[in-house]
Amino acid sequence: MVGANDSGGDTSRPPVVSASGPTVADVGEQALINRLTAMSTRAAADLPADSDRLLIGPGDDAAVIAMASDLIVSTDSLVQDRHFRLQWSTPEAIGRRAAIQSAADIAAMGGRVSALVVSIACPPTTAVDWVLAVNRGLNEAAVAVGARVVGGDVVSADQIVLTVTVFGSTDGRAAVPVSGARVGDRLAVSGPLGSSAAGLALLMAGRAQSYPDLVAAHRVPIVDLAAGVVAAEHGAHAMTDVSDGLGAELETMARASGVSMDVVAASIPMAHGLVEAGADLGVDPSGWAIGGGEDHQLLAAFDGAPPAGWTVIGSVGARDERRPVRIDGSAPAVPGWRSF
Amino acid sequence: MVGANDSGGDTSRPPVVSASGPTVADVGEQALINRLTAMSTRAAADLPADSDRLLIGPGDDAAVIAMASDLIVSTDSLVQDRHFRLQWSTPEAIGRRAAIQSAADIAAMGGRVSALVVSIACPPTTAVDWVLAVNRGLNEAAVAVGARVVGGDVVSADQIVLTVTVFGSTDGRAAVPVSGARVGDRLAVSGPLGSSAAGLALLMAGRAQSYPDLVAAHRVPIVDLAAGVVAAEHGAHAMTDVSDGLGAELETMARASGVSMDVVAASIPMAHGLVEAGADLGVDPSGWAIGGGEDHQLLAAFDGAPPAGWTVIGSVGARDERRPVRIDGSAPAVPGWRSF
Repeated sequence: MVGANDSGGDTSRPPVVSASGPTVADVGEQALINRLTAMSTRAAADLPADSDRLLIGPGDDAAVIAMASDLIVSTDSLVQDRHFRLQWSTPEAIGRRAAIQSAADIAAMGGRVSALVVSIACPPTTAVDWVLAVNRGLNEAAVAVGARVVGGDVVSADQIVLTVTVFGSTDGRAAVPVSGARVGDRLAVSGPLGSSAAGLALLMAGRAQSYPDLVAAHRVPIVDLAAGVVAAEHGAHAMTDVSDGLGAELETMARASGVSMDVVAASIPMAHGLVEAGADLGVDPSGWAIGGGEDHQLLAAFDGAPPAGWTVIGSVGARDERRPVRIDGSAPAVPGWRSF
Repeated sequence: MVGANDSGGDTSRPPVVSASGPTVADVGEQALINRLTAMSTRAAADLPADSDRLLIGPGDDAAVIAMASDLIVSTDSLVQDRHFRLQWSTPEAIGRRAAIQSAADIAAMGGRVSALVVSIACPPTTAVDWVLAVNRGLNEAAVAVGARVVGGDVVSADQIVLTVTVFGSTDGRAAVPVSGARVGDRLAVSGPLGSSAAGLALLMAGRAQSYPDLVAAHRVPIVDLAAGVVAAEHGAHAMTDVSDGLGAELETMARASGVSMDVVAASIPMAHGLVEAGADLGVDPSGWAIGGGEDHQLLAAFDGAPPAGWTVIGSVGARDERRPVRIDGSAPAVPGWRSF
């Protein structure tokens, strides 16, 4: 399932940077982000103490800055032929997906989505109606979660890149970090998993018409982002959204929290039709549910029972650097989605 | 001077959207942004009144949202081969430029820059050291204006696209909109103009070594962004940063404010070396100062004398839809920078 969400890339364009050192693909996205984050933290060490205080910095779903009330911020890009294909998604769906995947990062902090800005990079040959339809989808999805689009930028590029930056408010609650899971917590997810990865596999296999709900969920994630606020009010210790696959998110939460995670595979809620689609395509559907990203359901650790509607999938154990995540006792066989 | 800042684009990639209707290039960036903005405003009309209030919405340099204290937000993208060329700028310079051009939008609202997030889209073949150097430049420039990098995203793409979203605080002052110029105001700029456009022209002519300061200013804008807070404290009625050329910014401010602008060409402060470089290349250097964008100096309207360090270049007159900007009595001959 590596690259489950990689819709294939046009690699005909020659390398733009001749590399004597390692390339981005050599080191991988996470290692690169770790190095970028460390650099930013070092650079900010010089700032005076009276700057706006950073409550949660790089490395979580979103940053939290202490203004007079706490502001939550996150940014995400969707790239043509990487995250979406024009022949597989309407522009409205692409816009909705861009808004929802960004808003999910605010929900994953326990925040309420307030506003977003969008930068649209596209070729000059792009139809205006296409851009307007993307924006329509973006606005519809934003308003559906109580947010508005407050600004943006449009620039010329060879390829369509949508970058959404989203802002949220904690409404006075403490934001829920990814690093707060404690030994003994129960792990729970806010909804069924695997539909986005299954939808992509069905599209690639030319079987989209057999499972329209799974394909629709690939085009636009189906997730109740209000579950994030509910989880925060319920006292969630740690939370993140499942954007890179459940296995990868469990590992991120385990390592950030200094704990380990035990999950029972049979308890993972599978999207409707997932088992049938797996049988049809001859693949194990649990790979979609555990390895597939971009469902944007929420994963949280609770001290006790989760809120109504959540499903308990496992529990938090003592730190285990070698095997931070165990599914039915074994390390997950499927790594999550990686951009590079 | 159309496309003065267009470093040329690789147009070998085929059109990605087959257009039956008009393309983005057909309608132009501003008309497209206007339509996107109107759509966002309509969509947000459905939001409940208790949402975070939008004090200044799309169409200004940045949006202002009433959290408990006012938050200012803006987003901008830099695209490889459109806004920068790898052979002409170091990655540090590209990162610094990305931070400064975004921070200038906060300064143009009279705000203090607080934080920024960056999304880096790049080919998998990109050298890690190149990405780290961009981030180093971004952090250096952010810290220099009192801001920190609080998050980001890295995604795979065919072409390098840097999208910086920047956050600022009004520190309790009212933000300075672009629409506040009043009849009788004096127009002033915070520093010399034309260096970025001249630097690009010198690079394209292979004369970079003759005017290193102008070329350096093309690579990284040289601007004191604290001038924005000073102007706000001084009571500026309207303000914007000169990102698209002085003539274009004057027109934006005039139309937004419902006024007209009279500018005396000889009073426009020209960057050091601009006249000599113009003579060398056989072009009128005032084209760079009036039509060239990306100097990111501030343009403001004051009721009386501007703060120390600012240069008065003209005055505000009654609305004139047909000729909203007059330079020595005539409409400017040079339109500003347009992305498409």
